[in-house]
Amino acid sequence: MSDFILYNYFRSSTSYRVRIALNLKKISYEYKAIHLLNNGGEQNKEEYRAINPIGGVPALSHKGSIISQSVAIIEYLDEIVPQPNLYPKDPYQKALVRQICENINCDIHPVNNLKVLQYLEKNFGADEDNRTKWIQHWVDQGFSATEKILRKTAGEFAFGDTITAADLFIIPQVFSAQRFQVNIEKYPIINLLNKKCLELEAFKLAHPLRQIDTPPELRIK
Amino acid sequence: MSDFILYNYFRSSTSYRVRIALNLKKISYEYKAIHLLNNGGEQNKEEYRAINPIGGVPALSHKGSIISQSVAIIEYLDEIVPQPNLYPKDPYQKALVRQICENINCDIHPVNNLKVLQYLEKNFGADEDNRTKWIQHWVDQGFSATEKILRKTAGEFAFGDTITAADLFIIPQVFSAQRFQVNIEKYPIINLLNKKCLELEAFKLAHPLRQIDTPPELRIK
Repeated sequence: MSDFILYNYFRSSTSYRVRIALNLKKISYEYKAIHLLNNGGEQNKEEYRAINPIGGVPALSHKGSIISQSVAIIEYLDEIVPQPNLYPKDPYQKALVRQICENINCDIHPVNNLKVLQYLEKNFGADEDNRTKWIQHWVDQGFSATEKILRKTAGEFAFGDTITAADLFIIPQVFSAQRFQVNIEKYPIINLLNKKCLELEAFKLAHPLRQIDTPPELRIK
Repeated sequence: MSDFILYNYFRSSTSYRVRIALNLKKISYEYKAIHLLNNGGEQNKEEYRAINPIGGVPALSHKGSIISQSVAIIEYLDEIVPQPNLYPKDPYQKALVRQICENINCDIHPVNNLKVLQYLEKNFGADEDNRTKWIQHWVDQGFSATEKILRKTAGEFAFGDTITAADLFIIPQVFSAQRFQVNIEKYPIINLLNKKCLELEAFKLAHPLRQIDTPPELRIK
């Protein structure tokens, strides 16, 4: 048995971020699938709320101690297993990496979250087309700004020539964006970064379409 | 002249977070007001986009180096001016503080952001009443979960007996929530915490209704 249990969902981009971090740091973990849609959403069940009161995925258990929120989990993993470092040592460079992460974490992802889309449908009668436009709007706004920043910071990866947390936030967001027909080629640096990272073992193993809870008809090799 | 310039807006809760951090660490700074509504929003002007490509507030300039995103700024300030520490040293405790911050940063604030409300009005015809319900919904969901966590973590402050970053995220969110008629008394720990913090100099000086760009009719002593 592993010291680490990851409560997560194959398609959740925040879960995907954490899976990449665990893989990069070669931390083996038990995968507990929490299905966000089945039975009204398993994340809303009392059993899971006892683990994570806010009810979202991912949540990480480390020897029984629970952390939720992907930002908190990734920073934690980087502190307890420093190699390979996901943040530069220099405080200003570290701030720039966190800034890129936040452009995704704060300005794109929460607004396009499943629960937000469900509210739009229920309370504002937003149909699929309008929900897709909503998603594309926030992705485009966030990715345009991120692309501008990457022009200054990117080397082989989003920030310089080694993988940082910034890559862990960008790549899963690209996957989500593509599900909603965002044309990533509009963002050449992000597009290139995505292609490069998807070739790497840590990203491959973390990919939403290769998880134990990925429905068979979606699964890729 | 100060080494620090804070581009911010009196009523922005993310700006308010950073002002508290600067005050706690006794860092003097130049206050540059960016009006989020005047002239289509000063944050959208080319001049400001050159400083902060994503166009939001706050942005901090430290000796000419710019950081945006309040999470990145607060972590940076804590690294360059460690006293008083805003995060516990222990990695797990630190993760729990960050988790509380993220409950606000990720699950409440972005969904209730001005640009999101503007989109709801323009594209879904959401009137003031519907926008207020939207805001209240996300605040209630986030504060309910946060209150549960605080039952385990709170002492004199949100996490134990000293001020941490968690307090810097909670108090500004309470101010925003109250603008939209959320009854904070439903959350007794948050309510008590808010009353206590508002008595402290660092929070008082950072309060939205005491800034140089606060309109005179709203200003408090």
